[in-house]
Amino acid sequence: MGMLQDAARFLRTHDDILLIAHVSPDGDTLGSCFALYGALLELGKHAQVVCEDPVPAIYRFLPFSDQLIPPEQASPAEAVVCVDCADLARTGRCELLFRAAKATLNIDHHSTNDHYAEANYVQKAGATGELIFNVINCLKITLNKNIASCLYVAITTDTGNFSYSNTTPDTMRIAADILDTGIDLPYLNRCLFRTVPFPKLKLHALGVTKAKLYDYGRIAISYITLEDIASCGATSEDTEGIIDAIRDIDSVEVAALLRESDDGLVRVSLRGKTSADVSKIATRLGGGGHKLAAGCTMSPPVAEAAEQILGFAIELLHGVSE
Amino acid sequence: MGMLQDAARFLRTHDDILLIAHVSPDGDTLGSCFALYGALLELGKHAQVVCEDPVPAIYRFLPFSDQLIPPEQASPAEAVVCVDCADLARTGRCELLFRAAKATLNIDHHSTNDHYAEANYVQKAGATGELIFNVINCLKITLNKNIASCLYVAITTDTGNFSYSNTTPDTMRIAADILDTGIDLPYLNRCLFRTVPFPKLKLHALGVTKAKLYDYGRIAISYITLEDIASCGATSEDTEGIIDAIRDIDSVEVAALLRESDDGLVRVSLRGKTSADVSKIATRLGGGGHKLAAGCTMSPPVAEAAEQILGFAIELLHGVSE
Repeated sequence: MGMLQDAARFLRTHDDILLIAHVSPDGDTLGSCFALYGALLELGKHAQVVCEDPVPAIYRFLPFSDQLIPPEQASPAEAVVCVDCADLARTGRCELLFRAAKATLNIDHHSTNDHYAEANYVQKAGATGELIFNVINCLKITLNKNIASCLYVAITTDTGNFSYSNTTPDTMRIAADILDTGIDLPYLNRCLFRTVPFPKLKLHALGVTKAKLYDYGRIAISYITLEDIASCGATSEDTEGIIDAIRDIDSVEVAALLRESDDGLVRVSLRGKTSADVSKIATRLGGGGHKLAAGCTMSPPVAEAAEQILGFAIELLHGVSE
Repeated sequence: MGMLQDAARFLRTHDDILLIAHVSPDGDTLGSCFALYGALLELGKHAQVVCEDPVPAIYRFLPFSDQLIPPEQASPAEAVVCVDCADLARTGRCELLFRAAKATLNIDHHSTNDHYAEANYVQKAGATGELIFNVINCLKITLNKNIASCLYVAITTDTGNFSYSNTTPDTMRIAADILDTGIDLPYLNRCLFRTVPFPKLKLHALGVTKAKLYDYGRIAISYITLEDIASCGATSEDTEGIIDAIRDIDSVEVAALLRESDDGLVRVSLRGKTSADVSKIATRLGGGGHKLAAGCTMSPPVAEAAEQILGFAIELLHGVSE
């Protein structure tokens, strides 16, 4: 556990510390940064949280979220900590602040992390939030409700609310210690998992309504046109999650969602449920991905693209796709 | 902790034990019964799990679920344990087995439990599964994966996957010990929370599509007709959950779902989000419920009933409903 001690010593040593969240910030990088920010305040230190992008609306309930500043507004600090950034590129325009610093620390749970800082606390965990918890614990800082809420959000978002395979017994034990502080669990869950804009909800319903099942219900295909998105008053980002709803149909083994894109192409998301390797479909169309989650880009029209995907999916399920 | 010791002593003393799950069995009563069943087998005891109703389809993946029998098929046993039954009526037709037994034990987490058995291990907890975990622990029975999976299902279903206010630090610590056994967390989560029949998914999409917002988006009302249900190939039970999807719209404070019922009436489900007390609407219409979840029955046609609900909801939000 030398890395944890190193990280704690780093934070104890420096009094003016800049925390960097990664670009397109998620719950883990933000929750981890704000928790560490709150902890450093408890120690009487000066700290800043910096990110290339602003806090997404869904995370604006986070304590300390109003403290986030873009790199251009940051004051130079001699100590910089990258939080949840697997490599330097993930810091975006904040990389300049990192390079200008005299002392650098890297706290991250990604196995691909290349230990780019001087001190590196890089360890496999459900979320970087777990490592921040360990650091705060090691520094003997009292976990108040604000810090605890940030840590909870970091951990629950990166573990799919304790449902992904990265959820370990340690994750649960840390969550127990976090709950000891009396955080408002139902409120945090509502903010994170139960709040949806009406246009997005309508677009999801449309995606489900347009879904068709094939091959005894084992294949589900749906598509979303630019007109669909406009008719719901939604944006193309609101299509996120539709593919999961379709994959969750009990009979489905292979799910595909085709989306018309602003650039005139058709984006295809593919999901498998158990044994079918949907990356094989994606690869045949010049795309790629993992066994159970893959994607590719096709040419319009959508209907023809869907027809082709269906053919490949049938071949895949019937074992003739080589 | 005398009650826990009593429960453990009860189970240690008897060799032929009948476990009773409550009527309309849920994940907690079933997971708790099957976990205890598995544990008693480990001790070399003879055990039976009895329930008035069969195992619902969604819980048939549970280890030992094929062991559940109706009361008529149960062999008389001198020792009976009621699991997750707040009162004797919850045991349904199994009450006869309870009354015929020489020794009775009651293990339950409901605060309304009236201690109807000779020995009663009744304690507040997120789920009865937590109490069963304590008993198994107290009996020093090794938690194998099958027993652990059953306990996990009991706890995660009754705590809304660790999101309701009944989720305590103890809940999380028990979950950590359960995860130590190496249960397949993603699989269990998929079975419980990510598996939906296509007709139900389509009906939910229809419910969302028909939802309308009023009063600056603070009120959402939708309705489901018998024809809607038929058009999706769904059943009236498949309407469950639609009201929650509508309440989750970010701007909504009051949500209502009206459903045509087979008996020719209109069933109304009402949900509040934060401060609006929807039981006031229900009460005015002869129904009742809690502040954030209430319901009532109205006369058709649905459109007129919806109009009336909207009027009451506007009065409620504008503070003129007394």
